Amino acid sequence: MKKIINDPNAVVSECLAGMELAHPALKYTPELEVISRREKTAGKVGVISGGGSGHEPAHAGYVGTGMLDAAVAGNMFSSPSPDRIIAGIQEADSGAGVLMVIKNYSGDIMNFEMAADMAEMEDITVKHVVVRDDVAVPDSTYSTGRRGIAGTVFVHKIAGAKAEAGGTLDQVAAVAQKTCDNIRSMGMAMTPCTLPAVGKPGFQLGENEVEIGMGIHGEPGVERTAVKTAKETAEILLGKILEDYDFSGSEVALMVNGLGGTPLMELYILNTEVQRVLAERGVTVYKTFVGNYMTAIEMAGCSLTLLKLDNELKTLLDAPCDTPGLKV
Amino acid sequence: MKKIINDPNAVVSECLAGMELAHPALKYTPELEVISRREKTAGKVGVISGGGSGHEPAHAGYVGTGMLDAAVAGNMFSSPSPDRIIAGIQEADSGAGVLMVIKNYSGDIMNFEMAADMAEMEDITVKHVVVRDDVAVPDSTYSTGRRGIAGTVFVHKIAGAKAEAGGTLDQVAAVAQKTCDNIRSMGMAMTPCTLPAVGKPGFQLGENEVEIGMGIHGEPGVERTAVKTAKETAEILLGKILEDYDFSGSEVALMVNGLGGTPLMELYILNTEVQRVLAERGVTVYKTFVGNYMTAIEMAGCSLTLLKLDNELKTLLDAPCDTPGLKV
Repeated sequence: MKKIINDPNAVVSECLAGMELAHPALKYTPELEVISRREKTAGKVGVISGGGSGHEPAHAGYVGTGMLDAAVAGNMFSSPSPDRIIAGIQEADSGAGVLMVIKNYSGDIMNFEMAADMAEMEDITVKHVVVRDDVAVPDSTYSTGRRGIAGTVFVHKIAGAKAEAGGTLDQVAAVAQKTCDNIRSMGMAMTPCTLPAVGKPGFQLGENEVEIGMGIHGEPGVERTAVKTAKETAEILLGKILEDYDFSGSEVALMVNGLGGTPLMELYILNTEVQRVLAERGVTVYKTFVGNYMTAIEMAGCSLTLLKLDNELKTLLDAPCDTPGLKV
Repeated sequence: MKKIINDPNAVVSECLAGMELAHPALKYTPELEVISRREKTAGKVGVISGGGSGHEPAHAGYVGTGMLDAAVAGNMFSSPSPDRIIAGIQEADSGAGVLMVIKNYSGDIMNFEMAADMAEMEDITVKHVVVRDDVAVPDSTYSTGRRGIAGTVFVHKIAGAKAEAGGTLDQVAAVAQKTCDNIRSMGMAMTPCTLPAVGKPGFQLGENEVEIGMGIHGEPGVERTAVKTAKETAEILLGKILEDYDFSGSEVALMVNGLGGTPLMELYILNTEVQRVLAERGVTVYKTFVGNYMTAIEMAGCSLTLLKLDNELKTLLDAPCDTPGLKV
């Protein structure tokens, strides 16, 4: 295993400590593995997210002005425990309630809801939305219903902007839910990834083989097939997305996401093909995001996300934000 | 070879086309492989850079307000030809002259200087600086003298900020030269990378082997050794940097750069160790940059860069910039 680490069991805490050192606006709470904003805004709705580690910059990298107030990290590919999540809720709370953005994995749902119950006992009002953007498979290894993947970053952006603009908890939750309802994603994996504490890849792919629809923890997708061109990849992934949701005639935000090991050059080449297909299908791209936004450790591969926009969502998407993972 | 591409010989043009599609403020000139700002500011000194492709987001990703006016892409790991560079100079010129930021590779030096001579014949005043930040080896496969690597991004930032602030060509060149003089970098590679048109890795590294001081095109470093911990990596790379230049008692900008295939998590873990070593050695970190700034296709590995700051450099480093690869 070739990784720039020290102790395979300490990667999460050492990563978050390094993030705090790099970004002075962020505060790291050790043991509880929470990254939060150092400065609170009184009376602002808090927005938090979190989940297993290994998806950096998600989620801690999206803490900052205009996006999240706190992110709670679980161990690698493992849901954070409720005691960590309640710490995140407390860090995010400024008296106006807290919205939790949860990716649809059973462990996350259970632990975030348990933490919310505990928070309510402390008189913190908590609401949540669940992101289920991945159209690849109806159910998966760790989820009942669709998985939450890179589209989650758009939910952070939109909900964070609404909260920053002074929205109430109900308003922030409503616009976050609208975002969830209008997002679709799908991915493709080219190489496996290795959990540091395991020391070997979680699965194997052949020399010339990729897996369409694989999840961000290596969960099975829909098909193993020979390596595809960028053009074919765009057509396959968008084909499934556009079959699931009618984006034609709409303006969308597009994310061309890398899974960690794919160079930016390939993501831009893929973007060229994606934009071509979308134009052919009558979908207007309002804004494009290309980069590593929601990764699977060092996995090579990509995902595509479309978010249908209306005027409200456009305004919130364009609002300034300042986080390590996204600046607008 | 697993890459999200179409034609291995068209990766540069398809990447730059995808970059233009993602970033409406950028203009792509096909055939000549130039990315430039769509809007020019009359009377502003132009700043350009460029070099072989495969280092994305460098250099096209640093075109935008507060950084470069144009970037000229060569083929993969190959210097751009003078006709491409002259096109970049023309795109960047607004009547106040153009500064070229060149990494120290023999082909780049020759071709950029040839293009500058051609530009002078068109009455465009051109100056240049050469970045030689890599302390690993005194000479290398493609360079006489030290190689230019990730520290180049700081030169783009500083020179771009000075030009944006209305500096004259002499002033922009002077502060860029000061930046070059005060930068040191060193890297480490864990895996090889594959040129698309070649289809197989340019060299091999053993299962448990890394190469200290390897260049961003796979040029030989100083030592092949067993995988190091993050702590050891920080100590080895900084050891060589601090031996070469006395940063003690100074404030520095720090870049913890990934080579393309290394996850952000590992870069943050490395940052924790780097900050510890610098504190022990009496070096104060003013600002930290962690991410993939100057890559080697999908190579796993990292480099560290220190730039000694004074008040002028701090002001220019903190000035706003808005590019795909860096926003301040």
